[in-house]
Amino acid sequence: MSDLQQALRADGRRADQLRPIRLIRKYTRHAEGSVLVCFGDTQVLCTASVEERVPPHRRGSGGGWVTAEYGMLPRATHTRSDREAAKGKQSGRTQEIQRLIGRSLRAVFDLEALGERTISLDCDVLQADGGTRTAAITGAYVAAHDACSWLQAKGLLKAWPLRDAVAAVSVGIVGGFPMLDLAYTEDSSCDTDMNVVMTGRGGFVEVQGTAEGDPFAREQLNGLLDLASKGVSELVALQGQALAA
Amino acid sequence: MSDLQQALRADGRRADQLRPIRLIRKYTRHAEGSVLVCFGDTQVLCTASVEERVPPHRRGSGGGWVTAEYGMLPRATHTRSDREAAKGKQSGRTQEIQRLIGRSLRAVFDLEALGERTISLDCDVLQADGGTRTAAITGAYVAAHDACSWLQAKGLLKAWPLRDAVAAVSVGIVGGFPMLDLAYTEDSSCDTDMNVVMTGRGGFVEVQGTAEGDPFAREQLNGLLDLASKGVSELVALQGQALAA
Amino acid sequence: MSDLQQALRADGRRADQLRPIRLIRKYTRHAEGSVLVCFGDTQVLCTASVEERVPPHRRGSGGGWVTAEYGMLPRATHTRSDREAAKGKQSGRTQEIQRLIGRSLRAVFDLEALGERTISLDCDVLQADGGTRTAAITGAYVAAHDACSWLQAKGLLKAWPLRDAVAAVSVGIVGGFPMLDLAYTEDSSCDTDMNVVMTGRGGFVEVQGTAEGDPFAREQLNGLLDLASKGVSELVALQGQALAA
Amino acid sequence: MSDLQQALRADGRRADQLRPIRLIRKYTRHAEGSVLVCFGDTQVLCTASVEERVPPHRRGSGGGWVTAEYGMLPRATHTRSDREAAKGKQSGRTQEIQRLIGRSLRAVFDLEALGERTISLDCDVLQADGGTRTAAITGAYVAAHDACSWLQAKGLLKAWPLRDAVAAVSVGIVGGFPMLDLAYTEDSSCDTDMNVVMTGRGGFVEVQGTAEGDPFAREQLNGLLDLASKGVSELVALQGQALAA
Amino acid sequence: MSDLQQALRADGRRADQLRPIRLIRKYTRHAEGSVLVCFGDTQVLCTASVEERVPPHRRGSGGGWVTAEYGMLPRATHTRSDREAAKGKQSGRTQEIQRLIGRSLRAVFDLEALGERTISLDCDVLQADGGTRTAAITGAYVAAHDACSWLQAKGLLKAWPLRDAVAAVSVGIVGGFPMLDLAYTEDSSCDTDMNVVMTGRGGFVEVQGTAEGDPFAREQLNGLLDLASKGVSELVALQGQALAA
Amino acid sequence: MSDLQQALRADGRRADQLRPIRLIRKYTRHAEGSVLVCFGDTQVLCTASVEERVPPHRRGSGGGWVTAEYGMLPRATHTRSDREAAKGKQSGRTQEIQRLIGRSLRAVFDLEALGERTISLDCDVLQADGGTRTAAITGAYVAAHDACSWLQAKGLLKAWPLRDAVAAVSVGIVGGFPMLDLAYTEDSSCDTDMNVVMTGRGGFVEVQGTAEGDPFAREQLNGLLDLASKGVSELVALQGQALAA
Repeated sequence: MSDLQQALRADGRRADQLRPIRLIRKYTRHAEGSVLVCFGDTQVLCTASVEERVPPHRRGSGGGWVTAEYGMLPRATHTRSDREAAKGKQSGRTQEIQRLIGRSLRAVFDLEALGERTISLDCDVLQADGGTRTAAITGAYVAAHDACSWLQAKGLLKAWPLRDAVAAVSVGIVGGFPMLDLAYTEDSSCDTDMNVVMTGRGGFVEVQGTAEGDPFAREQLNGLLDLASKGVSELVALQGQALAA
Repeated sequence: MSDLQQALRADGRRADQLRPIRLIRKYTRHAEGSVLVCFGDTQVLCTASVEERVPPHRRGSGGGWVTAEYGMLPRATHTRSDREAAKGKQSGRTQEIQRLIGRSLRAVFDLEALGERTISLDCDVLQADGGTRTAAITGAYVAAHDACSWLQAKGLLKAWPLRDAVAAVSVGIVGGFPMLDLAYTEDSSCDTDMNVVMTGRGGFVEVQGTAEGDPFAREQLNGLLDLASKGVSELVALQGQALAA
Repeated sequence: MSDLQQALRADGRRADQLRPIRLIRKYTRHAEGSVLVCFGDTQVLCTASVEERVPPHRRGSGGGWVTAEYGMLPRATHTRSDREAAKGKQSGRTQEIQRLIGRSLRAVFDLEALGERTISLDCDVLQADGGTRTAAITGAYVAAHDACSWLQAKGLLKAWPLRDAVAAVSVGIVGGFPMLDLAYTEDSSCDTDMNVVMTGRGGFVEVQGTAEGDPFAREQLNGLLDLASKGVSELVALQGQALAA
Repeated sequence: MSDLQQALRADGRRADQLRPIRLIRKYTRHAEGSVLVCFGDTQVLCTASVEERVPPHRRGSGGGWVTAEYGMLPRATHTRSDREAAKGKQSGRTQEIQRLIGRSLRAVFDLEALGERTISLDCDVLQADGGTRTAAITGAYVAAHDACSWLQAKGLLKAWPLRDAVAAVSVGIVGGFPMLDLAYTEDSSCDTDMNVVMTGRGGFVEVQGTAEGDPFAREQLNGLLDLASKGVSELVALQGQALAA
Repeated sequence: MSDLQQALRADGRRADQLRPIRLIRKYTRHAEGSVLVCFGDTQVLCTASVEERVPPHRRGSGGGWVTAEYGMLPRATHTRSDREAAKGKQSGRTQEIQRLIGRSLRAVFDLEALGERTISLDCDVLQADGGTRTAAITGAYVAAHDACSWLQAKGLLKAWPLRDAVAAVSVGIVGGFPMLDLAYTEDSSCDTDMNVVMTGRGGFVEVQGTAEGDPFAREQLNGLLDLASKGVSELVALQGQALAA
Repeated sequence: MSDLQQALRADGRRADQLRPIRLIRKYTRHAEGSVLVCFGDTQVLCTASVEERVPPHRRGSGGGWVTAEYGMLPRATHTRSDREAAKGKQSGRTQEIQRLIGRSLRAVFDLEALGERTISLDCDVLQADGGTRTAAITGAYVAAHDACSWLQAKGLLKAWPLRDAVAAVSVGIVGGFPMLDLAYTEDSSCDTDMNVVMTGRGGFVEVQGTAEGDPFAREQLNGLLDLASKGVSELVALQGQALAA
């Protein structure tokens, strides 16, 4: 890796280096799982709520459901953004993100083992500095794990419902160089932005890459996937440490 | 005060005692003022955002505006409540509270001194255990003070726009006894619930008392106002300490 | 009382005098209770509708429910205001008022005696001149009473469900003087505005006082409560006369 | 006309007879025109509000606009209907009716003579017994006339903006017989329902006929139009008397 | 008919002549009935969907329901109009039209014979050149007929549920002359616009006439009804040919 | 490729074969570009509308904007789905798709060359059989090209604003085998679903892959990208042929 590439990152990170990651469990009291996840200055509160009911399309199936909602406090960002509850609707961006979080978590859940109940994952961004959706997925997994442990401790599970870990990271081409875990200033100036969701065993759950400026070539895509795989494997290790603590 | 009355409080407090109060400034990075306020287990993040525009009814007046919005994270409460952004509207309760916060803060602002700009106070409940609106007002004052200091440091103020401090506390009659700063279990079982907003010099800004069960008598009302005055004067002192830190 | 104080009231009233009050029963045909209440030029049509169902949180309880909705015709006011049905939502002010009316009426209802049915109180302002919410509560009680009589006449009640009368009045400090039952011009220029809801036996149901300008002192609050008690006792007498007619 | 046909009307009216009509001007204080119109037990409050602005498509045209909104109090009807403001939208029926009222009034207005301002006609049904839209049009004309007189008295009109009177009536085939001005029980059991809007000089502005059961024949249509012409000419005479009073 | 009158029609039609009519069945694959109806350049896709449920007011009745929805693609028109789904509500015009289509189709249905199921008619305008609602009704009848044949072929009908055909056409007074089946430029410049819905046996289902400029006289109304009767009888013949194909 | 793999496709296609593609220009009259695109039984009407205004964030920039909206007729699908305009909001899926179409088209536009105007792409699905979003992007490019030619013919363009072609295709792993351009039954049973948007020169604009069941491995991802590249290059050739016709 060149000197130039390193110089590009304002916070002194290497191109393939994650920001400092924190996963603080039991962050609030009431939820069955409650995790504050920090990817550098990005802070997302992820709670997992167990509810003894399922949406209509799952009723009577014997199996459960996992769903997610995403929100951002109005002043989580550099300039204040409108409160979605006051505007009366969620933006397309918000809906995209919460659908992504829900699909990502369901990818590692055995919904039959969960039983006919719902785990709702609420991911609320307290402070944003890029990568809120990937932090949310990474934190939501830990919160969901705690909710499963709570169910297990109560004797409510027939079998352990998590088949694998799941975590996510952003990668992008900034100033021509592939970089891992983009902070806000990197994200807003990048040519290509990609979010990658992977399991603990290294399978891909979601790959979403977008050319912001020029289209990207196949070899660039390959480089980004390499970086993402490295990043997610580190995140999964950190999830394991947090859950072992 | 009788022994009985003391025994009534689950957390061992005296009837006239506040819960442990914390006012943590600079809690998040982007806002001009950002305060986490805790009244025991009730935790509210209050941010103050300065915007160089005013609502239509203030345009061209030379004076500013102060407004507030209130929200509760879905799992701030014992059981998960619906996300207002997803439902597409704010409840009547939410609107009542945010109107109260806005009026309370405007009561101590000199809007002419503020200049033609807006301070938006966002009060988001991370964890609820009763008294979220009174905690929000108490924390929002500190956040607003920090935003004013930020404006002053930038040389944008003609005069200091805060005329006094403002804080709020709940009081209620629980099991026949008047009590200060009700926690959730006290609040939900009380006969009368009153929220009192006062200034640093002891003037009343808002008094909102509601009989939940039997109507309350004039002497009970007087007892509640005595308790509230004591509580607010302690809160104002704590605001001063936090701002001096 | 000084000469000055009297001179302050544009309509020649004494400071402690209600406006002319009218309570016209059977104002419209279809509702089980229908009352036009006038506090001077403020005219509110209050209807009570009996429906043989209850909201979800009361189902199967054996007990009933009492709820209220409030509206203002677009040209009830000096300048036309937008129609809430056309805007697609009720304002925060409307929701605050209808929640207040509902709580006030429930305070005097024995919901078990009512049986598993709902009384809906619709309070629609035909003409506004200050004090619409207090007129609405005062009129809604009479309409609710008529609806209970209708139920009783049909043999549908196990026991009489009204435990007491309830009425409301506004008080305020105008030009430094406490005054009863503010008309619009008084209300919009007052320093402190307070709405007080009380029962026939003199208990307080709601006290909502707001400093519009300077905060108010404890002795001012006491003076306002004295005035309000006098006003409500007169209103309760007038309710009794109307119901006896 | 047969004896049978007369016997069909519950209120003793002849088939070609209007219900008792009342047009009470200056019913409320604030509006530039305010008329309570009664067609028997149908009571509609029609206010005309003058506003010194026009909708975007009329800006800069020098000409004005006339528009209408329609609402029904929740308990104007036999059973309580939902409040549209609370539901968050106006029904298709409400929108149809208010569009009809607006078109009908614009048909007799010289919008250039009105000048670049808007007259908003709010038609709110206090009590419904069939024919609310036709009563609303008939009353709105009188309210609009009063608003024009108010403008003229202020010297704000270049020329008188009303070119003719406008009124409306319902007709229908009930039990096989054509009848004028249907009351609710007649309307809900009729085979064909027609609303006819005509000018003072006898021109048709709107004809809206609907077969509720069997289709209607051309000769039936002709009979209904005869009845409607008779009814509207009587209504126009009553409007003239009311405006002369 | 004068030479002048003929010259008025831009497309060379006689005053009493329909545009070229097409009724293309099985236009899309999934619906039980799917018809593209063209009145000249006006093209409306009408689908009939059979659903084995009925709205609440029909449940348990044994009988069915027929309903309609209407939409216009944003660029069906000369200039792009806003997408109603994006605006979050249907216009008053859209609601009026879809209520008219629903009523018109129900006028020829024997809902008991249909059985407890719903036929939903979706009428979506692909290209608009005037008369979209009348084309929609005419095409929806053919689609509904196909859906009934589908039900009959499956043995799901006790009796054939269509009692008659139904079709619709617009007529209007353009430049003083009555004309049949107005194209957009005729419609937007006409003095009077009337939509007439009739059955195959010549009964009237709906007559909706509106004076756009001057009111219309009784003899003009008669002339329009004559034209409409001629047009609908031709349309009904074309429906029959399409269904026989 | 094995025999097994071929046998898997219900319509007899090879795994790497597109469905029959049609691109019918000038499908409707009013739009500046109007293309019916068919990917087998999937039919999407794509119109391009030129409007001489830009959204707020582009005003005064001298440059233009390209945006897209997506809709599906209620009975485009096997079973009828609710009309979004009637429900009052667009689903998260709809918003995701229309954001994707807009980004994809903007990737090949030189917005400065377009000038300060907007091209709105409306993509409405008349019939759905899988791959509606990729068909929409492919058709929208042709419609946008026609709109640019229309602008050029009017002399309104400083420079040709399209830098490249853009097209899209879905790929997926069905029954363990990678397949190109999935039909509905393939899509709903596939393990992994990926939509790939590429330019005429072979650059990637969007890659969105989702594991529906098991996570997918890197080599599977590579195989899917190979298939997609093949498919898009064929689609771009077909776009060129359509535009040359």
